Amino acid sequence: MVLRSLIQFCRGGNCGLFGQGGLIMFDVNSGVSNYNTIDVLALILIGVLGGLLGSLYNYLVDKVLRTYAVINERGPAFKILLVMSVSILTSCCSYGLPWLARCIPCPVGLEEKCPTIGRSGNYKNFQCPAGHYNDLASLFLNTNDDAIRNLFSSNNSNEFHISTLLIFFGGVYCLGIITYGIAIPSGLFIPVILAGASYGRIFGRALGSLSNLNVGLFSLLGAASFLGGTMRMTVSICVILLELTNNLLMLPLVMLVLLISKTVADIFNKGVYDQIVKMKGLPFLEAHAEPYMRHLVAGDVCSGPLLSFSGVEKVGNIVHALKYTRHNGFPVIDEPPFSETPELCGIVLRSHLLVLLNGKKFTKQRVLSGSNILRRFHAFDFAKPGSGKGLKFEDLVVTQEEMEMYVDLHPITNTSPYTVVETMSLAKAAILFRQLGLRHLCVVPKKTGRAPIVGILTRHDFMHEHISNLYPHLVPHK
Amino acid sequence: MVLRSLIQFCRGGNCGLFGQGGLIMFDVNSGVSNYNTIDVLALILIGVLGGLLGSLYNYLVDKVLRTYAVINERGPAFKILLVMSVSILTSCCSYGLPWLARCIPCPVGLEEKCPTIGRSGNYKNFQCPAGHYNDLASLFLNTNDDAIRNLFSSNNSNEFHISTLLIFFGGVYCLGIITYGIAIPSGLFIPVILAGASYGRIFGRALGSLSNLNVGLFSLLGAASFLGGTMRMTVSICVILLELTNNLLMLPLVMLVLLISKTVADIFNKGVYDQIVKMKGLPFLEAHAEPYMRHLVAGDVCSGPLLSFSGVEKVGNIVHALKYTRHNGFPVIDEPPFSETPELCGIVLRSHLLVLLNGKKFTKQRVLSGSNILRRFHAFDFAKPGSGKGLKFEDLVVTQEEMEMYVDLHPITNTSPYTVVETMSLAKAAILFRQLGLRHLCVVPKKTGRAPIVGILTRHDFMHEHISNLYPHLVPHK
Repeated sequence: MVLRSLIQFCRGGNCGLFGQGGLIMFDVNSGVSNYNTIDVLALILIGVLGGLLGSLYNYLVDKVLRTYAVINERGPAFKILLVMSVSILTSCCSYGLPWLARCIPCPVGLEEKCPTIGRSGNYKNFQCPAGHYNDLASLFLNTNDDAIRNLFSSNNSNEFHISTLLIFFGGVYCLGIITYGIAIPSGLFIPVILAGASYGRIFGRALGSLSNLNVGLFSLLGAASFLGGTMRMTVSICVILLELTNNLLMLPLVMLVLLISKTVADIFNKGVYDQIVKMKGLPFLEAHAEPYMRHLVAGDVCSGPLLSFSGVEKVGNIVHALKYTRHNGFPVIDEPPFSETPELCGIVLRSHLLVLLNGKKFTKQRVLSGSNILRRFHAFDFAKPGSGKGLKFEDLVVTQEEMEMYVDLHPITNTSPYTVVETMSLAKAAILFRQLGLRHLCVVPKKTGRAPIVGILTRHDFMHEHISNLYPHLVPHK
Repeated sequence: MVLRSLIQFCRGGNCGLFGQGGLIMFDVNSGVSNYNTIDVLALILIGVLGGLLGSLYNYLVDKVLRTYAVINERGPAFKILLVMSVSILTSCCSYGLPWLARCIPCPVGLEEKCPTIGRSGNYKNFQCPAGHYNDLASLFLNTNDDAIRNLFSSNNSNEFHISTLLIFFGGVYCLGIITYGIAIPSGLFIPVILAGASYGRIFGRALGSLSNLNVGLFSLLGAASFLGGTMRMTVSICVILLELTNNLLMLPLVMLVLLISKTVADIFNKGVYDQIVKMKGLPFLEAHAEPYMRHLVAGDVCSGPLLSFSGVEKVGNIVHALKYTRHNGFPVIDEPPFSETPELCGIVLRSHLLVLLNGKKFTKQRVLSGSNILRRFHAFDFAKPGSGKGLKFEDLVVTQEEMEMYVDLHPITNTSPYTVVETMSLAKAAILFRQLGLRHLCVVPKKTGRAPIVGILTRHDFMHEHISNLYPHLVPHK
């Protein structure tokens, strides 16, 4: 409602170039009155081709990103050089390619001015004589939003020549691939929609009067097929396209095209975001456990050696552990005299240990000093700090004398960690880990008489690569 | 697409009365061009009143359902009598109330025939002279779908007199309350939409020219406010209304009204479906643990005594346990000589035990006979049977001699049950239970040297009633 009132205020011309848009970005009013068998066949073909082109796009983006990663690693100078060359290439294409297009006489009876004067507007004059416009310039020398709106529009189906659309499609497709991954903020969504919309419009023009559907709708469906072929997110793309276009009756067609293009593209490779996650080496846990995990138990994949602390631990040991490992969680084990037998007390986090050590509430003797420690801290001291703001190990100053002292870990121990028995099926442990969003899962022994904890499972232990290193015969090659 | 082609086929008149509808049930074309402060205030008022009326509806439905439950328990005769009296009352209202309405002369320049002839159509003649129609009859003596469509329509804002709408609203509101819960299939959705739509239209008529929004839109918003006030499901109702009306620009208004009415109604009581779940006594686990659960541990709420089986158990013990308890899962504990110390082997389900006992693979001695048993069964024998189709305890025939024999439970034991330590925070155990959708959660002891399992948590153990019985001082009264 706030947006609406601001838009209404700006429509009065009080905000300069702002406030031109509406709540619906691309209002596609092409009535989907009737469609017959030929239209449905055309849709299927759009979906299949969109899927093929989309998976090719992913393949090329992947290759280009790997190349750019090598270039970007060489230093800032190379980064800037890369950005500059891509920018210059883009500028050359945007300015140079329109010279290839022929001048088209302005259609009569338009509400808009043709050719347009100034920066906004859809009928760019470019090099053409008066009363004519250059259709390729209208696409290239426009904001992306306006270009998409032009492609989606169904008012003037001959506005763009088919050769123009082909050139534009080729240009946008290639520029989109080489632009993503350079050191400027640039997305995938708009380039993909642009390429898809021009592809769909080419398709619609090529079909001509064979189909009842108009070119604007074909353009929308082409965009959907490209989005399905690259992003592979069917539901969210449906919603986004619905919100952009405000036409519920188009939804079944969009859904059909999306499903087909996603299915076709899935044969060849993964979605573009999955590719990027994998390339960055992020340990992404799938929602479902892999089938081979059923043949393993939790104890099989625990990577050791396990580092654990006593309930009251020597400061030196903690500092040593923090310094020479990168573990984020350490199990705490209560030992005699604080308990009869060694037993698992809980788990402490690296960040909490740093805060505790920084507080310097150490004791000379090995005694419980929990209440004393708690008085020193507020709950807020242990609150999760903002990114990059927390205590770092390097900030810690511990004297040699303090290293020999003791600190009671009980106040900062999470005494209710989730645990699984070592003989628990790995698949079930993975479901537990993923569903509860854990970072550490304690594995406890089945038989008594051993250490009260066998290991800690982290996200990395569930990764395909880790398990296939340990059990190459069990894990199918991917 | 199948539906579309069938609709298109039926539009040709080949299907009788079928195929009148479209993909969009109630196409509301009222352009939401502008709305000002007064409109927004009106919306807020609609939301508040709708919330009040909705929670009153819930309160009355609850009372009526409790009364009906008493009546229905007395036997089928009373059930039928109840259905008949409600039916007669409904018929009397539908036929009797229209006599109260005045005859209205037909508007000129209609596409439809007025008064309508035959069963369908919106301008019912009823008792009126030619060229007139009875507006209350048009609502009462119509299908609910058509009545809603009439109320939502914005073509003729004076089609219904305000007194007509008041009578209709009162009638539908009361009939809706007394109809739900009798022994016929009847829903809550359509009566609530009907009542809400007439309420909204009354509101719109009362505002008159004060507002820029038309009465059809007010009717839609009234329906939204009623749905929000009774069902309390905001997101799904938004989507349903969007699908019914195909107007994305209305969405912000609908969302606003829904939020207000839900918030207002939540002050007084729970949603109607929550009420019904509670009335039926179903143990419904909320997605989030209650705050008081943080002060309890898993061991605190385990209800005993625990019944467990050995890995190789006497048939008589199993039959006895199945007969005298209603437990669905039993822990299996391996004892010497099959293991060094007693240890938890896993959990068996009642249904699997029944199948195993029915197979009669018993042994005279206490020996492991797992492989022998597995040969007797196929995996499919243990598949979950359809509702009411599985083996029942009564189907089991076990002779006195067999009662003294042994059976190996290992083949049917789930050896990877999810477990928590008895000192685990109950809140965390509840999250584990709910997120993984468990039915049994094993609670294991912290110290060794005791039985390897302390108890089993089921859904009932997490229920508010159960915990408040055990720890009345911890649990806030609801």
